[in-house]
Amino acid sequence: MALDSGEKKSFHMDPDEFRERGHQVVDWIADYYKRIESFPVLSQAQPGEIRSSLPAQAPQQGEPFETILGDFEKLILPGVTHWQSPNFFAYFPSNASGPSILGDVLSSGLGVQGMLWATSPACTELETLVLDWLVPALGLPEKFLSTKTGGGVIQDTASSAILCALLAARECATNFQSNQVGVPGRLCAYGSMQAHSATEKAMGIAGFGRDNLRLIPTDANFAMDADALVRALENDRNAGLTPFFVCATVGTTSSNAIDPVPKIGPICQKFGAWLHVDSAMSGTAALCPEFRYIHDGIEHADSYCFNPHKWMFTNFDCDCFYVADRAALIRTMSILPEYLRNQATESGAVIDYRDWQIPLGRRFRSLKLWFVLRHYGIEGLQFHVREHVRLAQQFAAWVREDDRFELAAPATLNLICFRLKNGDQANQRLMDALNRSGNLYLTHTRLNDRMALRLCVGQTNTTERNVRNAWRRIQEEAGKLK
Amino acid sequence: MALDSGEKKSFHMDPDEFRERGHQVVDWIADYYKRIESFPVLSQAQPGEIRSSLPAQAPQQGEPFETILGDFEKLILPGVTHWQSPNFFAYFPSNASGPSILGDVLSSGLGVQGMLWATSPACTELETLVLDWLVPALGLPEKFLSTKTGGGVIQDTASSAILCALLAARECATNFQSNQVGVPGRLCAYGSMQAHSATEKAMGIAGFGRDNLRLIPTDANFAMDADALVRALENDRNAGLTPFFVCATVGTTSSNAIDPVPKIGPICQKFGAWLHVDSAMSGTAALCPEFRYIHDGIEHADSYCFNPHKWMFTNFDCDCFYVADRAALIRTMSILPEYLRNQATESGAVIDYRDWQIPLGRRFRSLKLWFVLRHYGIEGLQFHVREHVRLAQQFAAWVREDDRFELAAPATLNLICFRLKNGDQANQRLMDALNRSGNLYLTHTRLNDRMALRLCVGQTNTTERNVRNAWRRIQEEAGKLK
Repeated sequence: MALDSGEKKSFHMDPDEFRERGHQVVDWIADYYKRIESFPVLSQAQPGEIRSSLPAQAPQQGEPFETILGDFEKLILPGVTHWQSPNFFAYFPSNASGPSILGDVLSSGLGVQGMLWATSPACTELETLVLDWLVPALGLPEKFLSTKTGGGVIQDTASSAILCALLAARECATNFQSNQVGVPGRLCAYGSMQAHSATEKAMGIAGFGRDNLRLIPTDANFAMDADALVRALENDRNAGLTPFFVCATVGTTSSNAIDPVPKIGPICQKFGAWLHVDSAMSGTAALCPEFRYIHDGIEHADSYCFNPHKWMFTNFDCDCFYVADRAALIRTMSILPEYLRNQATESGAVIDYRDWQIPLGRRFRSLKLWFVLRHYGIEGLQFHVREHVRLAQQFAAWVREDDRFELAAPATLNLICFRLKNGDQANQRLMDALNRSGNLYLTHTRLNDRMALRLCVGQTNTTERNVRNAWRRIQEEAGKLK
Repeated sequence: MALDSGEKKSFHMDPDEFRERGHQVVDWIADYYKRIESFPVLSQAQPGEIRSSLPAQAPQQGEPFETILGDFEKLILPGVTHWQSPNFFAYFPSNASGPSILGDVLSSGLGVQGMLWATSPACTELETLVLDWLVPALGLPEKFLSTKTGGGVIQDTASSAILCALLAARECATNFQSNQVGVPGRLCAYGSMQAHSATEKAMGIAGFGRDNLRLIPTDANFAMDADALVRALENDRNAGLTPFFVCATVGTTSSNAIDPVPKIGPICQKFGAWLHVDSAMSGTAALCPEFRYIHDGIEHADSYCFNPHKWMFTNFDCDCFYVADRAALIRTMSILPEYLRNQATESGAVIDYRDWQIPLGRRFRSLKLWFVLRHYGIEGLQFHVREHVRLAQQFAAWVREDDRFELAAPATLNLICFRLKNGDQANQRLMDALNRSGNLYLTHTRLNDRMALRLCVGQTNTTERNVRNAWRRIQEEAGKLK
């Protein structure tokens, strides 16, 4: 085949074919949501099963789109756990919604890079604006606004947000020397024994060593014991160490416990430690005035994060990370090689979000969040948060009424920890039977060294029917245990 | 309004509305690609302009989808720099394609979390398989296969890949103690003076201090001087320091220089240092046998990364990161809290990708890569890579023929560094005039302390017409300089 120019041959999908295939894909998703309850929530695939159904080598020649989409349906879908099923109650939700998906589609289509303001001004300015919108909406302090000393940025996950907070705190504690000369001596960080493992992971990454993370005991409600925190800080200070970072959790992963931030804040101030508040799932509840108490004390925080990709109908990834002092974060993360220099950066009039995160590149993630906020309005988001909390509390009431079961932790918001009273083995068997049935999916934790099942209401389309069915199935399977 | 149940009212977009709106959004994207050359490539927005066109507060009530999409077109689009324009020649490309966008749409629609194998087996197994596919396709050593001792994982960016490599190297150099007890003494890392700033940033993050990164001088082609590397390693070792990590670059950001990996590999082995090869953009060229020489010496590498989101028609984010010893990486990144324990993980029969990266959560990114590989086939990808290299080389030939201009670096593949011979100021004025015109977008670097313009051919739809027009406009604007 004689070709003298790239203009004459192309393997690309042209816009008209994209239109046709795009409609097919959108239809597939619409139909998927209609039939989603027909799939087992937890994939029943065995290790290696999906891979072994696929060719061992990449195709040499291109294949028709129908074939690819057909294989997706036939070979991939059986290996999918349906996080968007309304019968998904495991872990924390990672929910999505129509407006979010469509905002994300536009982001994929535009394919812009937001590493610098100059590389796509709207990508930066919409993100800054939308994160500012959420400050009053969640009752956060004004210092987190970009129009004050702070500002917000979208990170992929709360793990990355915690790492960024830890790094900024490290720099502040070392007069901005640790980036240059390494981590000096022993700096100590603190979180509760129920805090997410992300802090432990970040302590390793950032060069402190996990040994320098103190896991503070919790009270009867699995919340950090503020007196124990003071003792730990004093011990370390007396030993010549430098307490520099405290991570308080508003809604722990394990049981939704809420650390006493109003007490922890002044303690951090006294010891000169950076306070980060991790409200990854529960932060969304603060949209409703009646749940806003979860943010009591937040005025003491140096940084804060919550994840719209958990419970605010915005598909992954979307963690909103706020700092009170953006200059500290930027000074921590900034490096400016020649090939990224530009007039806007040098004018100082713009935000370059590459200096607010670990990676350099970044996609236009604020579009999906903007679509969600505009589609639902604050009112629509409040409605669904209230409904999820109401359903979780209804579930807790059913647990209390059944003598075989007990609650394993306070039922704070939308996560219920419960158990059969007759031991870990029975609970393990109950959970395995339920998950194997495919009717629902829930996961476990350990509280006071006993297994507890976790039922978290947060998937976008979960309604009373789904929670009622879940409880009926739990009762049924419990009845079958010998 | 009396409502007794969430089943009776909802603010959600139902599947039928999603279908209708989804078609609208797909049509918008198809039309966008048809008219993309009508926009100025570089957004002409001024700082604050986009933000000030939008409301200062989140809406209390939801808004119709038409209004949101209308505002996107009217208010956001003017602030977008068109990275998918075929007249985009700046930085490195961040290209997209129809099949990639559609794979990504399915990922958004499914909304699964791939943190553990168990949370969606297909998300993990497809990723492992597709990354294995690329090993022979790029001529990489077998040790990077998941079926051998290694394996691949999709990271967001090369920055994150380099950080993960640096952390695994740190752990290997400290007998897996630094995660636990912190970074001991002084470990030294090495990269060329032309290497990407990501290594410098990672050295700060990982607690070594940037002072412990040695920037090795480069040769006349801007590639690392291997003899200078040996001298630096010997100096440090003689001073009682421990060389532990070398980052070699195959295709530097600045000028596409290729470090001499066949020489660097044995040096690393002799000094016991981990060798990471960063081939972020250029790796894609190795799909073609005639360009595979860029990977000469890669058998010495302990880790490697390249970005399909740069030059392989797969939209951001998609960095493929390989390690030769997956056990070392996993041991470095793993933490297993109770709430993530599960049978599959404990069986040891599966990969849990949360242990291969910084964040915990992860989306189904291999779908878009799988769609790209199947749509194009290796043959289609090779065709477009060859075409881009041909066009870049054609551009270089035009530069050589014009007495006012000179090449500023070897024209290796698809990046051409060139300049007007009459000084930095003239080049700055030329670049500013071109970018202001909106006809094309290119950026600069400094080589031998002189400004150079960079023209990188890699956007999906760039054809000979676009490159020819770019050169015509460059000549025109050069002619207008006094």
